[in-house]
Amino acid sequence: MSDSIKYVLDESRIPRQWYNLAADLPEPLPPVLHPGTLQPIGPADLAPLFPMALILQEVTTEREVEIPGPVRDVYRQWRPTPLYRARRLERALQTPARIYYKYEGVSPAGSHKPNTAVAQAFYNKEAGVRRLATETGAGQWGSSLAFAGALFGLDVTVFMVKVSYDQKPYRRALMETYGARCIPSPSTETESGRRILAASPDSNGSLGIAISEAVEVAASRDDTKYSLGSVLNHVLLHQTVIGQEAIAQLEMAGDYPDIVVGCTGGGSNFAGIAFPFLGAQLRGGRAARFVAVEPAACPSLTRGRYAYDFGDTGHLTPLVKMHTLGSTFIPPGFHAGGLRYHGMAPLVSHAHQLGLIEARAYPQTACFEAGVFFARHEGIVPAPEANHAVKGAIDEAVRCREEGASRAILFNLCGHGHFDMQAYMDFTAGRITDQAYDEGELAMALAGLPQV
Amino acid sequence: MSDSIKYVLDESRIPRQWYNLAADLPEPLPPVLHPGTLQPIGPADLAPLFPMALILQEVTTEREVEIPGPVRDVYRQWRPTPLYRARRLERALQTPARIYYKYEGVSPAGSHKPNTAVAQAFYNKEAGVRRLATETGAGQWGSSLAFAGALFGLDVTVFMVKVSYDQKPYRRALMETYGARCIPSPSTETESGRRILAASPDSNGSLGIAISEAVEVAASRDDTKYSLGSVLNHVLLHQTVIGQEAIAQLEMAGDYPDIVVGCTGGGSNFAGIAFPFLGAQLRGGRAARFVAVEPAACPSLTRGRYAYDFGDTGHLTPLVKMHTLGSTFIPPGFHAGGLRYHGMAPLVSHAHQLGLIEARAYPQTACFEAGVFFARHEGIVPAPEANHAVKGAIDEAVRCREEGASRAILFNLCGHGHFDMQAYMDFTAGRITDQAYDEGELAMALAGLPQV
Repeated sequence: MSDSIKYVLDESRIPRQWYNLAADLPEPLPPVLHPGTLQPIGPADLAPLFPMALILQEVTTEREVEIPGPVRDVYRQWRPTPLYRARRLERALQTPARIYYKYEGVSPAGSHKPNTAVAQAFYNKEAGVRRLATETGAGQWGSSLAFAGALFGLDVTVFMVKVSYDQKPYRRALMETYGARCIPSPSTETESGRRILAASPDSNGSLGIAISEAVEVAASRDDTKYSLGSVLNHVLLHQTVIGQEAIAQLEMAGDYPDIVVGCTGGGSNFAGIAFPFLGAQLRGGRAARFVAVEPAACPSLTRGRYAYDFGDTGHLTPLVKMHTLGSTFIPPGFHAGGLRYHGMAPLVSHAHQLGLIEARAYPQTACFEAGVFFARHEGIVPAPEANHAVKGAIDEAVRCREEGASRAILFNLCGHGHFDMQAYMDFTAGRITDQAYDEGELAMALAGLPQV
Repeated sequence: MSDSIKYVLDESRIPRQWYNLAADLPEPLPPVLHPGTLQPIGPADLAPLFPMALILQEVTTEREVEIPGPVRDVYRQWRPTPLYRARRLERALQTPARIYYKYEGVSPAGSHKPNTAVAQAFYNKEAGVRRLATETGAGQWGSSLAFAGALFGLDVTVFMVKVSYDQKPYRRALMETYGARCIPSPSTETESGRRILAASPDSNGSLGIAISEAVEVAASRDDTKYSLGSVLNHVLLHQTVIGQEAIAQLEMAGDYPDIVVGCTGGGSNFAGIAFPFLGAQLRGGRAARFVAVEPAACPSLTRGRYAYDFGDTGHLTPLVKMHTLGSTFIPPGFHAGGLRYHGMAPLVSHAHQLGLIEARAYPQTACFEAGVFFARHEGIVPAPEANHAVKGAIDEAVRCREEGASRAILFNLCGHGHFDMQAYMDFTAGRITDQAYDEGELAMALAGLPQV
């Protein structure tokens, strides 16, 4: 049989710069606003939360930001990650499409998240910070920051969305093995958490709530900063190593994608694979379609409003313009916990608003079906989040078959599912349903958006 | 900081041959005996269980066995695996030792087991077999054969040791996601299983029992063959890709190991890393120490007898000469389920008997401590089995510090612990103890060895 193909880059090909889409956008990103004054905030406003190096990355419009040597040194543990041509999957689908996937599951935490965790830990360490507070959904981000914290000698406190804390005890164990402290959110450790628990003692939690808790802890302690695993410009920036490597690997394959697919929760893994290609297109290079795939139960890009909103439920963050379901929207407790966020990265939202990217929403059972099909043909069991990208890519490949068109499809397999086998057990046993959000609650959350 | 270093080989450097230690041994391996006649068995005796290609590999004394193209094609998905110089660990230990580890956790199943699973699936497929029956302890082997079965279109039935089936539901889910059927052993599906259950309805199971069940199923069905994940010569043969790659990678590093460490259950991952170096030594090359590390609760090399014994509890297999605790010995249900086997690979046993390798036994808490220390410095959480090798390597590195000696230590990190986080949770919570086996039971099991 003609087998699937791996494209490997030499270690010297780990990118030396992160790529910043802001440099190539036809219109600048709307400013971040102070929630009191509604005026654009400056770097000083963010200083309680982030070290200045990351704040400057948040606002820069330089095209390239140099990756520090010590960050590249840690990247070398698992980067460059492989790019595969999924020949076995293509055959099973009887598609003329050429399907490629970039595999980020080879990192020690099993996902793409260490790409930014390592960078954030490095800059915080350089700035003399001793402790990082963060939130996590499925636990991919929390365990990645725990990993990075262990390497750079930083204490890490993780507020983990309660439904995931209960569903995914093994990711919590991973954080603890790396030496981090993991707390179910909402918790009694913060004002934000206590307020939620007073109103809903059985709250499942959400990323929005957990962010409030982590921000509150960081803002109230001098030695502690806040760290976010997605959404922000600097986080998306760090993930662009994925797409940059993919460009070089597709060159090895003598190919270029017609379609780039990624799953979107906060937007960072999608941006990581898509932005370097989108940037090339904006600078006059070859065009591609960029497809963001989100869960139907938390559809910020396809059903949210493009508006100024808070990043968290407790309204401790500045206002950012993004696709949002409203900061009070609590999505149902579906399995792709990493995609349970009410908002979307401002850069991804802006690109969508400008018509540069498409968005699509899938229910979770269809995504699990796609993931199992992928596992049986390509041998890798994807994380439930990544299954959304798999489903998106398979649908495009099926369309190629129907249209007799041989397109190149690239997707990001952002993590393996080895920590998510409970979800696969539930799927196999027929215990997974397509939970819908409450339309009334969505309407209320949207009605409650800040007046800007 | 001067960081840990990864040594990567180009895909073209995946070995083209497996290395067979039998060719270089100073004394030949004692023959395998028929349990009825006590005469050496021939290839035809094994034909009900294995395809002829694997039987010939079992008995060959050729030094090199060519790896078929389709097997190398699948290997390319994750091979060559990385070799790391553990600089961060060295610093943490303040040791002058140079610590290297080969990392097999990058395979789709997360361990070294696919190296042989893919080969076995290939040869069975070539021989027209439709179904494979096997056993599994911790589930690393079962999930690897399930993976290989999915790629080659073979049905896979796995008898999983009951204590692991209960402790590690996620590996079972992985097998099922790949499409395999997973049955807790002892089961009511076989004569061997029913006999055990009649005597001990609450039996925890053991690898010896599960082997009996799988062998029975294979022997009783024309379309079904048996597949073993360790112990046999051809399984150890397939794992030698590990050591062959390590030799090339250490050449890149300009180094050669003074000490090679691996954990031993059935012996295949230890053999995989050690035999290519041992063979070089036997052919007049540089000498090294080879240290097999086993669990103190199942210490076949350090406390077993070198004698002819059955490979299984139900006495369906031929008699092989090996270090054994007696085929009726049931080890306590400790967490490194992959090391819970009463016997040891004949090749490893023979090498030990000839004084070519050393053996050492560690209790599990010391191994978990070593694993957590490793995770916090090198970033990878090892499987509980692999923690034994980590502990062995760390002890050698500490000895180097004490003696002021700068030796090169190479160990095999045979799998990641992402499926074993329950064990880490138990360890963190102080719920893991060093379960001892019953000395009286061991004496009885040894007294019951066949009279040969």
